[in-house]
Amino acid sequence: MTSSTETAHVSPAKSASTLKSAVLAQRALAERLFATLANGSQGNPGIMRDTFGPGENFAHGVLTDFAAEAGLAVSKDFAANTYVTWRGSEPNAPRILMGSHLDSVPHGGNFDGAAGVIAGLVVIEALRSLGVRPRRDVTVMGVRAEESVWFQVSYVGSRSALGRLPDGALEAKRIDNGKSLAAHIAECGGDPDAIRRRERHLDPATIRAFLEVHIEQAPSLVESHLPLAICSGVPGNFRYPNARIVGRHDHVGTPRRFRHDAAMAGAELAMTLDRIWEEEEKAGVPLAVTFGRFHTDAAAHGMTIVPGAFAFSLDVRAYDAAVLERVEKQMLAAIAGIEARRRVTFELGARASAAVGKVDPAIVAALEAGAARHDIATMRLGSPASHDSAAFAEAGIPMAMLFVRNEHGSHNPMEAMEIDDFLAACTVLADWVAAEVT
Amino acid sequence: MTSSTETAHVSPAKSASTLKSAVLAQRALAERLFATLANGSQGNPGIMRDTFGPGENFAHGVLTDFAAEAGLAVSKDFAANTYVTWRGSEPNAPRILMGSHLDSVPHGGNFDGAAGVIAGLVVIEALRSLGVRPRRDVTVMGVRAEESVWFQVSYVGSRSALGRLPDGALEAKRIDNGKSLAAHIAECGGDPDAIRRRERHLDPATIRAFLEVHIEQAPSLVESHLPLAICSGVPGNFRYPNARIVGRHDHVGTPRRFRHDAAMAGAELAMTLDRIWEEEEKAGVPLAVTFGRFHTDAAAHGMTIVPGAFAFSLDVRAYDAAVLERVEKQMLAAIAGIEARRRVTFELGARASAAVGKVDPAIVAALEAGAARHDIATMRLGSPASHDSAAFAEAGIPMAMLFVRNEHGSHNPMEAMEIDDFLAACTVLADWVAAEVT
Repeated sequence: MTSSTETAHVSPAKSASTLKSAVLAQRALAERLFATLANGSQGNPGIMRDTFGPGENFAHGVLTDFAAEAGLAVSKDFAANTYVTWRGSEPNAPRILMGSHLDSVPHGGNFDGAAGVIAGLVVIEALRSLGVRPRRDVTVMGVRAEESVWFQVSYVGSRSALGRLPDGALEAKRIDNGKSLAAHIAECGGDPDAIRRRERHLDPATIRAFLEVHIEQAPSLVESHLPLAICSGVPGNFRYPNARIVGRHDHVGTPRRFRHDAAMAGAELAMTLDRIWEEEEKAGVPLAVTFGRFHTDAAAHGMTIVPGAFAFSLDVRAYDAAVLERVEKQMLAAIAGIEARRRVTFELGARASAAVGKVDPAIVAALEAGAARHDIATMRLGSPASHDSAAFAEAGIPMAMLFVRNEHGSHNPMEAMEIDDFLAACTVLADWVAAEVT
Repeated sequence: MTSSTETAHVSPAKSASTLKSAVLAQRALAERLFATLANGSQGNPGIMRDTFGPGENFAHGVLTDFAAEAGLAVSKDFAANTYVTWRGSEPNAPRILMGSHLDSVPHGGNFDGAAGVIAGLVVIEALRSLGVRPRRDVTVMGVRAEESVWFQVSYVGSRSALGRLPDGALEAKRIDNGKSLAAHIAECGGDPDAIRRRERHLDPATIRAFLEVHIEQAPSLVESHLPLAICSGVPGNFRYPNARIVGRHDHVGTPRRFRHDAAMAGAELAMTLDRIWEEEEKAGVPLAVTFGRFHTDAAAHGMTIVPGAFAFSLDVRAYDAAVLERVEKQMLAAIAGIEARRRVTFELGARASAAVGKVDPAIVAALEAGAARHDIATMRLGSPASHDSAAFAEAGIPMAMLFVRNEHGSHNPMEAMEIDDFLAACTVLADWVAAEVT
């Protein structure tokens, strides 16, 4: 931290302690909003804010209702994303976007996504309480459809707003009801045709930066006894959402040389990628390999039948595009070998991918300086998960993320974020926003 | 083949060619019975003769109807097995049992099981056509509930008849409807309480031998261009019908060191047993390892969730009890290692096992001699699959099996057995029975 950084980011009127007190004073607001969200989206167990369904719609309603109550401007775009804006005095100054997604996985937790939206509201309310009159618009974005478990497509809300949703994505079917993404968007008041035409609701040139607060989805901060991390990068990925292995169903007594065992082929692929992962990690290269769905065919399997059909989803993620390319090549080579040796055929199906999300180094430095000023200990952490922030970065918008300590991982009902840690993130974010808007 | 064997097994009146012609004359009967069975138990695709359900009941009805038409005696036991008997002149002479099961796997083929019952009928009708008057009873047994896919219990019909069904088996639930085996047996006219008391319908002392004709369930005979094999042994097995792995559901971005990935644990166990299998085979020890069900939890899995739950069934079979014991020990040691390294818990659940079924060497020699007499080329073949015959052997009854060439394996709709090959098996069987009853 240099004194010049400090000068650039803190106006004399708002000393560090004043700003921190103003954020901590929003504790009741944060607790109320988290409780309102949880009460209205129970998933028994956990939380069910289904993408473009009643759960997600409810969460957007909570955001809209709060904005009305607080006298902030509300708007929607053609993907039904919600924007709550604190107007600035200079209409042409690029605006600050804060936010995250409001959907959840089935039976997920209450903080994944929602924390980033509520953090934005806490920051605005804290700065308003200090009498700040912003020079530029400060907008909280409630992003739609980040959880790709529903439509098997990444970053639907953010990429739609940026005019960058890939061809075909609107035809994806929601995994539980089979209805298309386009139909869901239309039902929620959006305009899928505008998305298909790649209209742009958000012009990167008009956006100063996108900042996302998110719970950490692994226990690195718990392990390190730190409340907060500054993101050093968001992983890119390649994905095969609906891969299949075709073998032949045979009697359980069929000798080895006659088998076409699709499950053993799946197990061999999994172990091959697991070994590659282990080796990359030993070499210091972060990577993650997940076979989220990994199963024989429930309509045909049985204890006395050699499995002739196997299905899986695969997600491989890394912080370096070259690593992803290398691993995918190794995987395809391994598949060819497994096909030959085990007399099966892999049908990998559609491939999806997301670019690596690079953080803006100047914003990262400013956030770290701000945290230090407020005596908040942080570490740098590569995001374990994908986030909408990567879509903003890919569109050329400066991006940064803050991770809040969270126990028990995410995507499950046991997520546990302390409000103290959350307010620490809000303090660092408010500090940065204050400097940018004054 | 020695001339003394020949003398012992062929009565001068029925020369080899006469007997063969009498069997071949039953082609129309065999074809009609197979067609009747198939027409009445269509499974779309394949055959559906569900254990203790409408499909299996239909097949037993076909057997009963034929007996009535042919003037043979019919009886049932407390497990609803069907017995069709050609009465012999000496009531106290141990009787010959021929037969097999009449149930099928879901969407199975028409020959698996049924061929052994129809073979018995063909043998009786061929010998009757030659005017044979048997000294001892010759009985065809339509065995219930051999396909353990339905109740996850082996040899229900045969072991019940022998008073050897293990404790607890009657409480097993049919996998598709959840109703108990006891309830199913009662519904089909059986008496589960008699089975529970281990009453014996078949006293081993009163049975000369049990002979089972069955299609081959692997393509060894196709590969060898032979119509028929004489079984050299039926494998025993150990089974875990309902094993589970408990890990933790986590976000797809969770780093390796924090994961409790139940699917990767399952894949590692599968690959470990696959490697053991490969090594045993290289050492000349026949073995088979099947994970028939092998799957993440459909209610909780998804592309972006590290699987916290995995389920599988395991069947390991070999012709040597010591091999089974060795492999199971290696498996349990491997599981302990996987649990420690992958932070998961295996819940293996109920264990089942079946003894190795030893064939009667004298009957095998006689069948081989008979085949040679009829110019039918055979090979010896270890049964790939389990069969009721193993339950008879375990009860101390002399046992032998004949395998008929069959394409495309079994437990699937594409089973393909040629009637010529089937009649070759019937010829060898009739030859043996003729010598035993005269």
